[in-house]
Amino acid sequence: MTEQKRSVYAFGGGTADGSADMRDLLGGKGANLAEMARLGIPVPPGFTISTEVCTHYYKHDRAYPQGLESEVASALARVEEITGKKFGDPENPLLVSIRSGGRRSMPGMMETVLNVGLNETSLAGLVARTGNERFAWDAYRRLIMMYADVVMEKGAGITPKGGKGIRRLLDAHLGRAKQKKGYQLDVEMTAEDLKELVADFKRMVHDTLGVPFPDDPMEQLWGGIGAVFASWMGRRAVEYRRIERIPDEEGTAVNVQAMVFGNMGDDSATGVAFTRNPATGENTFYGEYLINAQGEDVVAGIRTPAPLNKASANELSSDLPTLEHLMPELYKELDAHRVRLERHYKDMQDIEFTIEKGTLYILQCRVGKRNGVASVRMAIDMYEEHLIGEKTAVLRVTPSQLVELLLPMLDPKAEQSAEPIASGLPAGPGGAIGRVVFTAEDAVSWAEKGEKVILVREETSPEDVDGMHSAQAILTSKGGMTSHAALVARGWGKCCIVGCSEVEIAEDETSFRTKGGVVVKEGDWISLNGTRGFVYEGKLPLVPAELHKNEHYARLMELVDRFRVLRVRTNADTPKDAAQAIKFGAEGIGLFRTEHMFYGEGGEKPLFILRKMIMAGSEDRRRAALDELAPHVKRDVKATLEVMAGRPVTIRLLDPPLHEFVPHDKDRLAALGAELGVDSSELARRADALRESNPMLGHRGVRLGVTYPEITETQVRAILEAAAELRVEGHEAFPEIMIPVTCTERELAHQRRIFEEIHNEVRGKYELEELPCLFGTMIEIPRAALQAGKIAEVTDFFSFGTNDLTQMTFGFSRDDIGGFLPDYLSQRILTSDPFQTIDQEAVGELIELGVTRGRTARPDLKVGICGEHGGDADSVEFCHRVGMDYVSCSPFRVPIARLAAAHVVLKED
Amino acid sequence: MTEQKRSVYAFGGGTADGSADMRDLLGGKGANLAEMARLGIPVPPGFTISTEVCTHYYKHDRAYPQGLESEVASALARVEEITGKKFGDPENPLLVSIRSGGRRSMPGMMETVLNVGLNETSLAGLVARTGNERFAWDAYRRLIMMYADVVMEKGAGITPKGGKGIRRLLDAHLGRAKQKKGYQLDVEMTAEDLKELVADFKRMVHDTLGVPFPDDPMEQLWGGIGAVFASWMGRRAVEYRRIERIPDEEGTAVNVQAMVFGNMGDDSATGVAFTRNPATGENTFYGEYLINAQGEDVVAGIRTPAPLNKASANELSSDLPTLEHLMPELYKELDAHRVRLERHYKDMQDIEFTIEKGTLYILQCRVGKRNGVASVRMAIDMYEEHLIGEKTAVLRVTPSQLVELLLPMLDPKAEQSAEPIASGLPAGPGGAIGRVVFTAEDAVSWAEKGEKVILVREETSPEDVDGMHSAQAILTSKGGMTSHAALVARGWGKCCIVGCSEVEIAEDETSFRTKGGVVVKEGDWISLNGTRGFVYEGKLPLVPAELHKNEHYARLMELVDRFRVLRVRTNADTPKDAAQAIKFGAEGIGLFRTEHMFYGEGGEKPLFILRKMIMAGSEDRRRAALDELAPHVKRDVKATLEVMAGRPVTIRLLDPPLHEFVPHDKDRLAALGAELGVDSSELARRADALRESNPMLGHRGVRLGVTYPEITETQVRAILEAAAELRVEGHEAFPEIMIPVTCTERELAHQRRIFEEIHNEVRGKYELEELPCLFGTMIEIPRAALQAGKIAEVTDFFSFGTNDLTQMTFGFSRDDIGGFLPDYLSQRILTSDPFQTIDQEAVGELIELGVTRGRTARPDLKVGICGEHGGDADSVEFCHRVGMDYVSCSPFRVPIARLAAAHVVLKED
Repeated sequence: MTEQKRSVYAFGGGTADGSADMRDLLGGKGANLAEMARLGIPVPPGFTISTEVCTHYYKHDRAYPQGLESEVASALARVEEITGKKFGDPENPLLVSIRSGGRRSMPGMMETVLNVGLNETSLAGLVARTGNERFAWDAYRRLIMMYADVVMEKGAGITPKGGKGIRRLLDAHLGRAKQKKGYQLDVEMTAEDLKELVADFKRMVHDTLGVPFPDDPMEQLWGGIGAVFASWMGRRAVEYRRIERIPDEEGTAVNVQAMVFGNMGDDSATGVAFTRNPATGENTFYGEYLINAQGEDVVAGIRTPAPLNKASANELSSDLPTLEHLMPELYKELDAHRVRLERHYKDMQDIEFTIEKGTLYILQCRVGKRNGVASVRMAIDMYEEHLIGEKTAVLRVTPSQLVELLLPMLDPKAEQSAEPIASGLPAGPGGAIGRVVFTAEDAVSWAEKGEKVILVREETSPEDVDGMHSAQAILTSKGGMTSHAALVARGWGKCCIVGCSEVEIAEDETSFRTKGGVVVKEGDWISLNGTRGFVYEGKLPLVPAELHKNEHYARLMELVDRFRVLRVRTNADTPKDAAQAIKFGAEGIGLFRTEHMFYGEGGEKPLFILRKMIMAGSEDRRRAALDELAPHVKRDVKATLEVMAGRPVTIRLLDPPLHEFVPHDKDRLAALGAELGVDSSELARRADALRESNPMLGHRGVRLGVTYPEITETQVRAILEAAAELRVEGHEAFPEIMIPVTCTERELAHQRRIFEEIHNEVRGKYELEELPCLFGTMIEIPRAALQAGKIAEVTDFFSFGTNDLTQMTFGFSRDDIGGFLPDYLSQRILTSDPFQTIDQEAVGELIELGVTRGRTARPDLKVGICGEHGGDADSVEFCHRVGMDYVSCSPFRVPIARLAAAHVVLKED
Repeated sequence: MTEQKRSVYAFGGGTADGSADMRDLLGGKGANLAEMARLGIPVPPGFTISTEVCTHYYKHDRAYPQGLESEVASALARVEEITGKKFGDPENPLLVSIRSGGRRSMPGMMETVLNVGLNETSLAGLVARTGNERFAWDAYRRLIMMYADVVMEKGAGITPKGGKGIRRLLDAHLGRAKQKKGYQLDVEMTAEDLKELVADFKRMVHDTLGVPFPDDPMEQLWGGIGAVFASWMGRRAVEYRRIERIPDEEGTAVNVQAMVFGNMGDDSATGVAFTRNPATGENTFYGEYLINAQGEDVVAGIRTPAPLNKASANELSSDLPTLEHLMPELYKELDAHRVRLERHYKDMQDIEFTIEKGTLYILQCRVGKRNGVASVRMAIDMYEEHLIGEKTAVLRVTPSQLVELLLPMLDPKAEQSAEPIASGLPAGPGGAIGRVVFTAEDAVSWAEKGEKVILVREETSPEDVDGMHSAQAILTSKGGMTSHAALVARGWGKCCIVGCSEVEIAEDETSFRTKGGVVVKEGDWISLNGTRGFVYEGKLPLVPAELHKNEHYARLMELVDRFRVLRVRTNADTPKDAAQAIKFGAEGIGLFRTEHMFYGEGGEKPLFILRKMIMAGSEDRRRAALDELAPHVKRDVKATLEVMAGRPVTIRLLDPPLHEFVPHDKDRLAALGAELGVDSSELARRADALRESNPMLGHRGVRLGVTYPEITETQVRAILEAAAELRVEGHEAFPEIMIPVTCTERELAHQRRIFEEIHNEVRGKYELEELPCLFGTMIEIPRAALQAGKIAEVTDFFSFGTNDLTQMTFGFSRDDIGGFLPDYLSQRILTSDPFQTIDQEAVGELIELGVTRGRTARPDLKVGICGEHGGDADSVEFCHRVGMDYVSCSPFRVPIARLAAAHVVLKED
């Protein structure tokens, strides 16, 4: 054994072969079971087959490594020794569970088989030892149902005759059997009923799948192990990993563990607990349990679970007896384990436990999922409790959890005057609006068409993961705070209400009716308040989250700013956005788009003048229109510069192709024609001359500034005069003029001459010694990145425009990717949308080249990024690594960029 | 002097400071004058002020280096010594010419001043020595006219009062003076008339320019030198350099040389000669001369010059006496210099000579411009005469000269049945058609609008260079084979007819009338045969040149192929083009575009099926249409593979966005709808769904192959079956399948799986052991170039698609550059159109990276280029240097690519 590489690691009886730091080899579950065993926590004994076996299995056409069989045999013998039971024994039989366990949690994505080891022989022993014939036959019945489905059908890749899955056939038969006897619940079935059922099941399994149910315990064991490995490549698991970006190569471990039963009577129970409240972050023990039940019953959300203690009670469960009340000693023991585990792991733990006839077992512990609010609170609380250091506190909150705090919520004012049509458990905070769909498939296909949808289901299952991901929010009528829907939504930070029993979904799944009689049909709009659990009819307005009220957030961001090096600016075009961004911690504006002033409120007048300029037809007329436009530009720029109070403001000169501004409706065209004294056919001719085949690569940006230098002149003058006026009035102002769409340094030399001329002119006019203003360029064209050395010689700063750079580096028009990007992602030709996260391979190489060459030519070159990537955590980390000075993103992404900028520094340590 | 850097180089009297290899320092003219002086050729003595002085002049705000004045003084003294004359002397005055002379010839682009040193005092001496008062006063009159224009007005940058140039004022006054006396010609003016004229001129110069005409000879000398340096940055010179891509930094030298006079009577003459015929390449002495004239009279084309000898006579000049006949001794002497110079320089020389009172002087010699046909012939003849080696012969012909041989000509059949409306001198070979314009400005502006124009003028001047460049061809009614128009057209290989005296241009320059009475108005089409000198009304068809009849070409290409390493393929989509290309020496097809079959002859049926496929709406229907399409594709591919007879044929799979194929007219749409059983609104909806904002970056190329794998399958199957059938029939076939628009290796892995599957299937079907076919990709997206290492792992070859690569690297949509590219070129923001010549800075860097990374991953990777750059000489050289295996270009560019590929090897030596 010592010579050969070990494949099996035992745990239990106060000792273990593995430990918590062997997660890669044993998976999360296996490593934690080993760790708990070493800590003396009462875990049922068992053993873990390592992830390396999974890798071997897939590399060698689903064959096991040599020696595995004997390793498993010895490990099993050790479990028999600790428990005093024997596998397949007719007197005191050992039953085992077989569970998956990857490096990272993939809840419900892989398979589990329970009660393995039961057959007609060992069943007699189980009856004898438990004195509970009904329990034993029920266990056998459960084994057959689960095994036939998981191992015999899915694991073997068998397509059942008739097309229906064996699980559904058996379920239907169980239903009919209960009906025949007039039973409502499974528990009403007697031992005799179950014996009959088992016989039927075995026959049906043989008929449907073509092979008999195996009665040999060892065959059951190996079948189960194989099924777990096979489930790693099951459709659901592969999909989940795609969403979560987990590589296929990691593989899963398999955990084989002695069974304990929470369903052996009223002195038995099973439950799930969190060492702190995963929804709020409060430091209170939180959990749910069911008396006389198996663990799967809690997670499946079929029965409403009872609260562990008062603090865990909610609207649905507040009448149910707490475990603290019902079994005070066991509760105390559980609470002691809770404290022990959290101190040991220094993080909130999610614990599964079972009480078998008055004895407490811990079946699993792992880092508990939490929503963003809870994550921030726990990080700060644990830091203040000295459980973790400040670096750990900062690293504990992921950027995507922080996103949740910034998620929009329903407008409280609108909510006050609206009446909820139903309420349920607040499983995922924030607000959401969307159109109701009832199936995961619809959620996916509607969302692909650009619809915002809310997925409404009785309960969700792992099959629904794709649809849940596509939906704005999830609403279930059943299940508790630890149900599948709640768990998944919590992981994603998605708005979610569960256990909303006031909602009744129609059989045909095209509408639901509330207790109050409101009928909501497929496609109708509803609004959810996931923080409070309220459902409203129609579309309520969404407003930004009230971050400033969250003091834990404020303390976290204080810590964050201690570590980050990268500066964070915002993209803002209005004084309002600028002010908002400052609240979020923006240190400047990285992108102020001059063209913004032509849209929205107050934009009609300047837009009209701009259109006159565009359609002018001669330089004189163009200059006249520009002169008219100048005061508008100056006013606009000045207002934002003033709000930014001396922080740098990068102002990009006119960027889009002129044709974008040409009016399409007849009235506007007529008004324009009248103003210009030009008839409609001439106007149409001019508009037509501006139309382009590929406007993204057309006559825009600096190309306009070169062909119409007067456009650059006017803008530069307006910006510099705005800054000069502020300085004269005693304010600070620090504009940075940015030229877009550059491809050669000569364009910049041309524009810089204009800039310097106007700069002199304005300084003279306002009698200013100094009028600070940088002159720089976007780097958004591949050629500009490659020629950065030359470009740096005529510029003070670079701002990487990664949207356009991605478009041109990939040859993807962002407006036109709908036809192929979904296929590219689903077939993994691309691992992520390059417009969301910077493609570090190629676009990243151009950026690195650009930064390096630019800095070589001009060591003090200021370098930043604007565009949506500036608010994407991975991209922010990339920007830090290539040595940028700042990132710029939309106001709401500023905190995320700050956090990501701190993370990358801490990860470098 | 020895310590300080020398600025002035003397020549004459059988010796010289400089020599022919000092062209960079002395300019072409200066270096050759020095060389000739050393050879004992009778050049009038003089000195050259070096190009370094020009550089200094522009670097130091138009100031001269220290010491220049004294260097000039000593050099002038030496000239006085050799000639025995004195500058400004009242008895035997020395007169000098001041001429520009850059490293490369820029004919007529810079300024010249003659007769410098004349004033009232020295004039008396000139009269005394020559005994010719009229000649002396005429020389003085010429000096004033030229000096006032070149030095006092242009050189000083003075804007004359009233806006008219001084030259025009003086010309007009001269005209009036002649009229008053009833004279027709200048020569009729008497000494007295000229004295009066000189007095008037001096007054007019003073009045108009505000300063008196300088009578101090040294002031005249320095004024002339300054004007020549100033003319280097004159508008005409700058424009010419832009077209010829000569850097501004080279500068010009200034040559000051003792005047000799061809206009001192009937024993004086001036002329231009070529050591071989520059229009045909024949090894016969060729030239023209004028008795009693100055050199400028020959070039200006005002009088029809006489032929040097019988071989130089043409239709206009055959009645005039030859120099050989008139002055046999001098002709013999000239012919001896001709032989001496050609043997010495080992290339055809262009010689200017003057005979002053029976004494022959050589004023200049330089490598003579020649057209393409002559260039090829001279190279081969000189090689066969053992004057030059084979490498020199190959290098002697430039790619653009070879272009001329490939220029289209008027269809001989059409010409037979057409009647010329006029005939003139065949100054530039080839055929051309275009609309008549009468000014250079119109030629430029019409051409910018996409019109083909022919510039018709009495004679051309350096002011017309831009317009001549824009025109398809040039037609002049005056001037000979050495006139400005002939010289310029010859340099550019442009179709040109000069001296077409049968054409009379109307005064208002809106029409011309032929001797036969045909009136051709502005905008009318005419056709020129520049090889024969015929003008036709209307548009005659153009046909390709009959290259195969040119045996010198064939012998040249034999030499060429000895040196080149790069292989040359062609872009061809039809068997006809393929056959044509083989004749031009193509070694394979580098780009066969499958979509070509849907256009043009016989394309209607497959296009209809393609449209059915595009609008199918479901995979089943799409597959059905593809099955219908397959035989058409197979037939098309097979025919071309057969013609290529085993040479490699790269077949690109469907490239354009599908929307490009959607019909626009109602009838076609209706037919399509009927076939598909779909109503027009549904059809419109589907067509609309295919429309894209930026189709160039849209759903095209491999993106179609990924989303609709059946499209790839069908094409691959058709290609492989075509090859298999040929093999079965006993032919060779070597297809290479090429995937377009790739941006990641995963796209290729996806397509390669399909390729391999179909390859196996087709091999099986045709029972073939071997079915050679490579699988490769276009590298036309920046990301693909950067990721070439990974891409090479799944491909056998790369073909750089530099058209698209340029579009994306620059962010230029080729269809939309009209709005700014002209400004970019004229303002020198770009030095050349990147779609004509590869941008070696950035696009070139991506290509180099792509080749290096690709070859690192797969050393045997085949690398080529397709797209129009493959036929551009500079780009071909670049492709060789980065290590490509082949270039591919249109059939007519194949010989050019072959030549360029040989040149780059020879230049590397």
